[in-house]
Amino acid sequence: MTNKIKIFSPATVANVSCGFDVLGFCLDTVGDEMVIKKSAKKGIHITKIEGYDLPYEAEKNVAGVSALALIKDYKPDCGFEIEIYKKIKPGSGIGSSSASAAGSVYAINELLGRPYNTTQLTNFAMKGEALASGCEHADNIAPALFGGFTLVKSCTPLKVLKIPCPEDLYATIVHPKIEIKTVESRAILPQKIELKHAVQQWANVGSLVHAMYTNDYDLIRESLVDVVVEPHRKKLIPNFDLVKTESLKNGALGCGISGSGPSIFTLSKGKETAEAVALAMQSIYSKTNIEFDIYVSSINKEGMKIMNNE
Amino acid sequence: MTNKIKIFSPATVANVSCGFDVLGFCLDTVGDEMVIKKSAKKGIHITKIEGYDLPYEAEKNVAGVSALALIKDYKPDCGFEIEIYKKIKPGSGIGSSSASAAGSVYAINELLGRPYNTTQLTNFAMKGEALASGCEHADNIAPALFGGFTLVKSCTPLKVLKIPCPEDLYATIVHPKIEIKTVESRAILPQKIELKHAVQQWANVGSLVHAMYTNDYDLIRESLVDVVVEPHRKKLIPNFDLVKTESLKNGALGCGISGSGPSIFTLSKGKETAEAVALAMQSIYSKTNIEFDIYVSSINKEGMKIMNNE
Repeated sequence: MTNKIKIFSPATVANVSCGFDVLGFCLDTVGDEMVIKKSAKKGIHITKIEGYDLPYEAEKNVAGVSALALIKDYKPDCGFEIEIYKKIKPGSGIGSSSASAAGSVYAINELLGRPYNTTQLTNFAMKGEALASGCEHADNIAPALFGGFTLVKSCTPLKVLKIPCPEDLYATIVHPKIEIKTVESRAILPQKIELKHAVQQWANVGSLVHAMYTNDYDLIRESLVDVVVEPHRKKLIPNFDLVKTESLKNGALGCGISGSGPSIFTLSKGKETAEAVALAMQSIYSKTNIEFDIYVSSINKEGMKIMNNE
Repeated sequence: MTNKIKIFSPATVANVSCGFDVLGFCLDTVGDEMVIKKSAKKGIHITKIEGYDLPYEAEKNVAGVSALALIKDYKPDCGFEIEIYKKIKPGSGIGSSSASAAGSVYAINELLGRPYNTTQLTNFAMKGEALASGCEHADNIAPALFGGFTLVKSCTPLKVLKIPCPEDLYATIVHPKIEIKTVESRAILPQKIELKHAVQQWANVGSLVHAMYTNDYDLIRESLVDVVVEPHRKKLIPNFDLVKTESLKNGALGCGISGSGPSIFTLSKGKETAEAVALAMQSIYSKTNIEFDIYVSSINKEGMKIMNNE
């Protein structure tokens, strides 16, 4: 039996324009690394955190909270030590807390011989996510654990659907390093929306799923439209409109807010276009005094990856 | 060249629970018949209407209005005579006006050697639909012309997607013969809806499309849920809740309002279940003093059908 595991826990993009609170996809060039070991000492012990300053107490750390939820259910004879090599900046809008919350339960499940399925792991990870965002949701957890493109059909009971996506779909992400709290970003949204906008949005969600099945890039382009959330949240992100205009001009299929921002995602057909979009983004933010990161990534079909076993 | 054509113009179900204003499907055991002839006299002339009392003036008849829109664009050297054998009761909620509006343009297009594609025909037919319902929409026109299961992604520009559906899917429809005007049925809806309900609805639309691609009957069942429109409109339909409860108890995958009612549709796996649902519906309405019709139908994959040519 393996007693130690090192994993890559991917960053993810939630909402995906039309699919607020429902759609998400998984990246493969951005993510945390985590090392999880079985220990004689029972419970969850976070022994190392590199990259960002996060709490060591398991009850205050998202990776700890999700892991605690799992062991509360499984009651293993051992405990677990968690090392977190945090590469996704907390608050960036590309699923930083979800990567931690999902990573710990994924790794522990592997060390225990996979007693849980992916939906069950998602449920445990949602407990960790709740610590970060104030509510249990799965829109970043699901793509991190299932990989690819996911649709969270419902949270209670949890039902995650894995939607196929074309091979040649690439994401470009720009993370302007400003702070937007998920809680604030939720507060800016209206509780009620126009029925006609809702109709437009669910037409787009349906047509995006159809487009993914039919590899119809034009239809992906036409479906990546958000008339409900983006008009409100984009105000919190400097240069959003310019990034969107330039990304589309450079061939992106669509451009929107990643999760609750401030990161902005685009989807493109082919790596070359995704890289052209990255250059356009760079050109915009390098003229500002805002620090930023840019990532180009294909869609990560697997989700979590085991890096090595000892 | 054919100078006369007889067609079957099918009844349709719009909205389909979660897909208000967007989804629809086509029936094959209920529909109008129409005979359309080329005539030396230019223009559109309605020469016969059987079944229901409808206006003969082309400008006041939905089949006439859509036909006029087509010939205004095409400018043919001849005119057309239309006979309408109306079998779908106007106001029943299974696309009576759409069958007329779509039937005339479909038949004229055939007689002209198919100068227009199905999307163009849908646009003409929407002009007729507007006469009946006060606004141009395609949620019954699209399934009547495209057949099968359709998603109207947008009306301007018109984009209709044809969604695959499992072979063994059957509809049962009960039409309680009470009058609900489409205009009234629209007026009962709120202009604004809760964002959380909208999210649930677009999760259901996305998951229904996914379920259709994967032939996942359980997921079809879970997706045929309407938290936005049904709670309001069901008040206009006597015994709706009872019909729904009994239909589901008898094995239906889902039950909802067909279009703006008063017809109620269910979808079931297999004809046997669809017929058991029909019996349950019959048992309910036969205890009332409301007249009713019940139809069992597979999904009509083709839409319009040519019955014979002369």
